[in-house]
Amino acid sequence: MLSGSDFDGSRRANQTFSSPSKEFLKRSMGMPPLMKVAGKWKFLLPIALVPIPILLRLFGAPDLAVFAAAGVAVIPLANLMGLATEELSKRAGPGIGGLLNATMGNATELIIALVALGRAASLAAGGYQTDANGLVEVVKASITGSIIGNVLLVLGLSMLVGGIRHKTQTFSIRAAELQVTLLVLAIVALVMPELFQLSTEGPGAAPALPNVSLWISALLLVGYVLGLVFSLHTHKDVFNPVTHEAEPPLWSRNLALGVLIGSTVLVGLVAETLVGAVGGVTATLGLTEIFMGVVIIAIIGNAAEHSAAIMMAWKNKMDLSVGIATISSVQIAVFVTPVLVLASMAMGKPLTLAFEVFELVAIILSVAILAVLAKDGETNWYEGVLLLLVYAIIGVGFFFHP
Amino acid sequence: MLSGSDFDGSRRANQTFSSPSKEFLKRSMGMPPLMKVAGKWKFLLPIALVPIPILLRLFGAPDLAVFAAAGVAVIPLANLMGLATEELSKRAGPGIGGLLNATMGNATELIIALVALGRAASLAAGGYQTDANGLVEVVKASITGSIIGNVLLVLGLSMLVGGIRHKTQTFSIRAAELQVTLLVLAIVALVMPELFQLSTEGPGAAPALPNVSLWISALLLVGYVLGLVFSLHTHKDVFNPVTHEAEPPLWSRNLALGVLIGSTVLVGLVAETLVGAVGGVTATLGLTEIFMGVVIIAIIGNAAEHSAAIMMAWKNKMDLSVGIATISSVQIAVFVTPVLVLASMAMGKPLTLAFEVFELVAIILSVAILAVLAKDGETNWYEGVLLLLVYAIIGVGFFFHP
Amino acid sequence: MLSGSDFDGSRRANQTFSSPSKEFLKRSMGMPPLMKVAGKWKFLLPIALVPIPILLRLFGAPDLAVFAAAGVAVIPLANLMGLATEELSKRAGPGIGGLLNATMGNATELIIALVALGRAASLAAGGYQTDANGLVEVVKASITGSIIGNVLLVLGLSMLVGGIRHKTQTFSIRAAELQVTLLVLAIVALVMPELFQLSTEGPGAAPALPNVSLWISALLLVGYVLGLVFSLHTHKDVFNPVTHEAEPPLWSRNLALGVLIGSTVLVGLVAETLVGAVGGVTATLGLTEIFMGVVIIAIIGNAAEHSAAIMMAWKNKMDLSVGIATISSVQIAVFVTPVLVLASMAMGKPLTLAFEVFELVAIILSVAILAVLAKDGETNWYEGVLLLLVYAIIGVGFFFHP
Repeated sequence: MLSGSDFDGSRRANQTFSSPSKEFLKRSMGMPPLMKVAGKWKFLLPIALVPIPILLRLFGAPDLAVFAAAGVAVIPLANLMGLATEELSKRAGPGIGGLLNATMGNATELIIALVALGRAASLAAGGYQTDANGLVEVVKASITGSIIGNVLLVLGLSMLVGGIRHKTQTFSIRAAELQVTLLVLAIVALVMPELFQLSTEGPGAAPALPNVSLWISALLLVGYVLGLVFSLHTHKDVFNPVTHEAEPPLWSRNLALGVLIGSTVLVGLVAETLVGAVGGVTATLGLTEIFMGVVIIAIIGNAAEHSAAIMMAWKNKMDLSVGIATISSVQIAVFVTPVLVLASMAMGKPLTLAFEVFELVAIILSVAILAVLAKDGETNWYEGVLLLLVYAIIGVGFFFHP
Repeated sequence: MLSGSDFDGSRRANQTFSSPSKEFLKRSMGMPPLMKVAGKWKFLLPIALVPIPILLRLFGAPDLAVFAAAGVAVIPLANLMGLATEELSKRAGPGIGGLLNATMGNATELIIALVALGRAASLAAGGYQTDANGLVEVVKASITGSIIGNVLLVLGLSMLVGGIRHKTQTFSIRAAELQVTLLVLAIVALVMPELFQLSTEGPGAAPALPNVSLWISALLLVGYVLGLVFSLHTHKDVFNPVTHEAEPPLWSRNLALGVLIGSTVLVGLVAETLVGAVGGVTATLGLTEIFMGVVIIAIIGNAAEHSAAIMMAWKNKMDLSVGIATISSVQIAVFVTPVLVLASMAMGKPLTLAFEVFELVAIILSVAILAVLAKDGETNWYEGVLLLLVYAIIGVGFFFHP
Repeated sequence: MLSGSDFDGSRRANQTFSSPSKEFLKRSMGMPPLMKVAGKWKFLLPIALVPIPILLRLFGAPDLAVFAAAGVAVIPLANLMGLATEELSKRAGPGIGGLLNATMGNATELIIALVALGRAASLAAGGYQTDANGLVEVVKASITGSIIGNVLLVLGLSMLVGGIRHKTQTFSIRAAELQVTLLVLAIVALVMPELFQLSTEGPGAAPALPNVSLWISALLLVGYVLGLVFSLHTHKDVFNPVTHEAEPPLWSRNLALGVLIGSTVLVGLVAETLVGAVGGVTATLGLTEIFMGVVIIAIIGNAAEHSAAIMMAWKNKMDLSVGIATISSVQIAVFVTPVLVLASMAMGKPLTLAFEVFELVAIILSVAILAVLAKDGETNWYEGVLLLLVYAIIGVGFFFHP
């Protein structure tokens, strides 16, 4: 598991706008024995865990058990998908490889959300409008949860764990500032639709909202694609000052492609089981859909980032740790979210960019505290505590959410 | 046109709180042939263009044609007015000259808005309350548009255009931070009245709103005047480290004064035509008044800043470029706006500081992204793209505005 | 009075998260003659002033006179309480001493608020629900006023006064950033309950609000206590680079303890008189309760910080000045406020964390301008003017508050 997380960490940090992780990759490859053991488990663990939720569901187990089993099974699958992407991108060359890494970076979250939206669309078509709306709310809440979870929980735990071992840790201000700027762009993109919803509450609904969401999503994707051009092409030296010698791929192209396709299909399958159990779980535990999405599903979808970022912090590689957490947030905000908006419209049950006020405010507050903390390029355990406290306070808000 | 824009650029950057432009002025005067040609056109262009909208209106042309012709005619006039101000301030000595430059800096916007407010007052007096309110909304929207347009569109285009030619460009953090702080002051001044309006919506209106607007406007003007003392007197060396030798004036005092008065009168005349056609244009194009003000009129009123700032960025003088854009925003916010509030009250059709929620939020978001981007004193093409995307997203919001 | 304020200044800056003041203490102790005179007055002034409001009340003087006399009497008492704390903490060793200093740092504000909450609880028990609610509003408003007053008024006056004498003054960015981060944490803690209140306005009230306030207050106190561990234990060298030789205590332990207990009791007594007169004063002067709390009571409660911070700025010790103002704000926000929430619930008249929208917005705007100004570690007179203008604009808002 250990070096598995490391690999995943390097994949994440390798994404989009910064990739200082190859240097780490090389180090971790200096540990061959651990590698091989981990290598075996990387395949065995998913194979062992994936059937459980599916069987539990077939035999009519309670939703809570199905949900828990699916939540556990998705984590090693996500790890495997990350490894296959890493291997494939080594063979694809830096340009396409970087693109591949970036696109697959939050594949788990994307697949879970797409499955949920598909289910919502078929529920809506079958006349179960309330259930369909509930699922769309869960998807929105899980987007919120991924954004704030990475910024507050993942980064907070990393700073705390790293800070317990190292008095002061440093990271690159330049990379962090770009991510903060992109999160501010995402906030702009969420605030405008919110104003539409707030200014037209009541019976007359907001007829312009889907249009506004569509245009803004398109603009976000333009920003995302140009961001890839910026970080992978025109300014790659700025974010990646070390000249990398090519990494030798460990897997054949066909193996990598096969594992990638296989794990993606399995993630979809497990996601299907997971999403199918959401309704039952919220009812059983007496949780609101928003708490379910913001806290529970977001933690499952980002488990890989959690372990990788914390590991990096412990090893005093705070640059990687901050990179994993912030880039993951940014990708959810400016790539996954607009893709989901466009996909949901194609599916016939639109997800608009107008989130709950609670969600939008939580995102704004998370980015505000990140912006203040990221300014000096230094972290310590107490900064981690502060991020975790903000997460806890927001969590209290969502728990009692009316 | 080229050196005209340059001159205008130096005038702008010379304003209020920073004046690093004399050094550029001297350079551009090293190009005498271009100067003379441009010199001729500077007079010929306005003389040729100004009569067109007036004649079109007399002969009953459609509002759209009148509006377009007036919009085009105002641009070279604004340039001429800037030149005359520059010449006059050379003869007035640094203190009065700086004051003159600062005061005339956004004269075009100020004159257009004053003409519109005067028209609104006479419409209101004649019983056309809806039309009067509509014009006041257009004025508010054009204030919003000037503030966000300079920060997002002008600065974004400058960073993009400059960044295409130069990988990384730098500017003075110190000057930029002062402007950001003044924009935060302006936000405080707009948020308080907004709260009054929001907390008293419904039949009972907000009787305290004009009073609150009056007091806050007075406080903003105090801040503006003390800002001039700060940047032109007590700390002028901080913002203007180079000791300037006096520039030799090119025009006689009487010529400069005559051109200034003449061009100001003509701007007023053209503005009158422009404002008279606003109602017809919004109806013809099916645009809302708020979109008209925020986007169209703001672009016309700030055309000079646009060309000057982009030119400076292309020439790798990012300090000037950032200065032109941010100082122009600040002047609109802490000088033009309170002057308009006070003038409107004297005219009898009060413009309060309570803007539309959409407008206020757009200003806050613009300042937030500026604050994040201005922190490191570096720009690149992608930062320009991000500013433009924020402008586009806000534009989508105003286009579909309910 | 002079060196009294100095002492108080060192006590304040010695609190919680930063204590660079001992060095000043030593200097001020190099002025023995002034010390002795001040020493006498330190005891004589409270003894002379405390009986006045109590006697005025007994003889049925108008509320305004009682209130003014109590407001004046509390200031030298607060100073004496600070001195006794300082002396006691010298004998207690750095750990307990730091804790003592931090806890007693805003004792005056805390005592006044506790007395007011106790009175509100007994009013509510006696059926005077409106009066009880009014007093709770005054307490909330005085919390708001202490936070924004320290950030805007105290710091603004310090920068202005210091800036008149010294062209540019500098302070430690690192310490200021920690305070800004803690203020952002406090904002998060206030925004969440606000959303509950806003989303459930109307008849159905917010049943979850006391629970939410309770949990968030507990989290704030966790943050506060860990902050003490951080600044007094694990990272004390970061905030306190100079190795202090132990200060020789001037008072015996018993004298210090006796003065501390005596002055605390007297502050309670005077606070009782002050609070009892609040209702009458608001009625007499025609002020709203919110203006009373935000401006008048906040200024009385923070008089010691005012004089100390301004004195430090004048002596070009801007580090101390910024420390006094920001730490005092932070302590009110993350220590006094949650303690009051918990105490009010024990007393039976709950104070929730859901403030007036005006108050919350004022706090957010104050922290925003502080964050922008604190970034460069430099101050000048104009930055002071800007903070004072923000204070004045917010003051206009509260004066006309509907």
